Amino acid sequence: MGWQKTFTLSKRSKGCHLVTDEILSQIEPGLKDVQVGMLFLFIKHTSAALTVNENFDRDVRRDMDMALDHIVPESLNWLHTDEGPDDSASHTKASLVGSSISIPITNGKLNLGTWQGAVACRHKTSEV
Amino acid sequence: MGWQKTFTLSKRSKGCHLVTDEILSQIEPGLKDVQVGMLFLFIKHTSAALTVNENFDRDVRRDMDMALDHIVPESLNWLHTDEGPDDSASHTKASLVGSSISIPITNGKLNLGTWQGAVACRHKTSEV
Amino acid sequence: MGWQKTFTLSKRSKGCHLVTDEILSQIEPGLKDVQVGMLFLFIKHTSAALTVNENFDRDVRRDMDMALDHIVPESLNWLHTDEGPDDSASHTKASLVGSSISIPITNGKLNLGTWQGAVACRHKTSEV
Repeated sequence: MGWQKTFTLSKRSKGCHLVTDEILSQIEPGLKDVQVGMLFLFIKHTSAALTVNENFDRDVRRDMDMALDHIVPESLNWLHTDEGPDDSASHTKASLVGSSISIPITNGKLNLGTWQGAVACRHKTSEV
Repeated sequence: MGWQKTFTLSKRSKGCHLVTDEILSQIEPGLKDVQVGMLFLFIKHTSAALTVNENFDRDVRRDMDMALDHIVPESLNWLHTDEGPDDSASHTKASLVGSSISIPITNGKLNLGTWQGAVACRHKTSEV
Repeated sequence: MGWQKTFTLSKRSKGCHLVTDEILSQIEPGLKDVQVGMLFLFIKHTSAALTVNENFDRDVRRDMDMALDHIVPESLNWLHTDEGPDDSASHTKASLVGSSISIPITNGKLNLGTWQGAVACRHKTSEV
């Protein structure tokens, strides 16, 4: 049962990025014949996350990144800072936003709302 | 495989609302014959969210809405405020709480904990 | 379709705890013959949560618990404090982190990233 594929998203800077089209280009073979189903996307990182959000105004993604920096400040008394001051903060953001999203499939297409898209958030600035 | 239905929840004001019974009334035909399965609920909005939480004391839902207002304040330096000062804040709350919930089904019923219910959060005050 | 099991995690103190091995020991019979599938874990509590995060340095889990205390402070003006000052704060944390996680299964194994594990967070200090 089901169809599964592992793929790598293009490299992006810290922030939240609309990835709907990039994902669709990867999953088209598995999607097209599904009349009723679910897409489960899972990101294999602990300082990045997946969410569903606004697909039109990129300011919404900038705002989300700004808000996450406010909600989970680097200035807290973190123990784990091996890879920089945003190390544990990035992990916490990842758990708040989540490592997976679930999107209904209907008649071979993602059944998203008009203004919804798949969004990937990279929380760490450093390359490590 | 699977059974799928799109439906509209009754209109509610800003805040978090228990919607278990309203959802059950919509999905009863798909639920009743499932011995072992999963219910995936997905909300097609970017300023509303779904979660599983306490089903008994409505103060818990009031507290959650109050806390979300504290965690994601309207006073941040938002870029996207086309639909009011709570526009981007609502989108951020939606991503923190999440656009979908997954609940096990066992013997034709939702296998929730005693105190768990499905909760829908509307984050925006305005009608837009 | 599918395999389902209800089990109880060992009792743990307030905080975030790596539970990958404990979960694997419970689900091995259902996991081993799945070539392509998904594991859906759901926690039947409203003051505890499940997430996927770093599996190596336990300081990351301590940091996450510390950060959640900062993000959702007990000092807010909570209405629901029947079971102590962390009662509603715990429920809010549970909804931010989430009651379920979804992990891909490939060739009979969880298809997690190198540094990913299943993490259970208990938000309440009291026994109630």
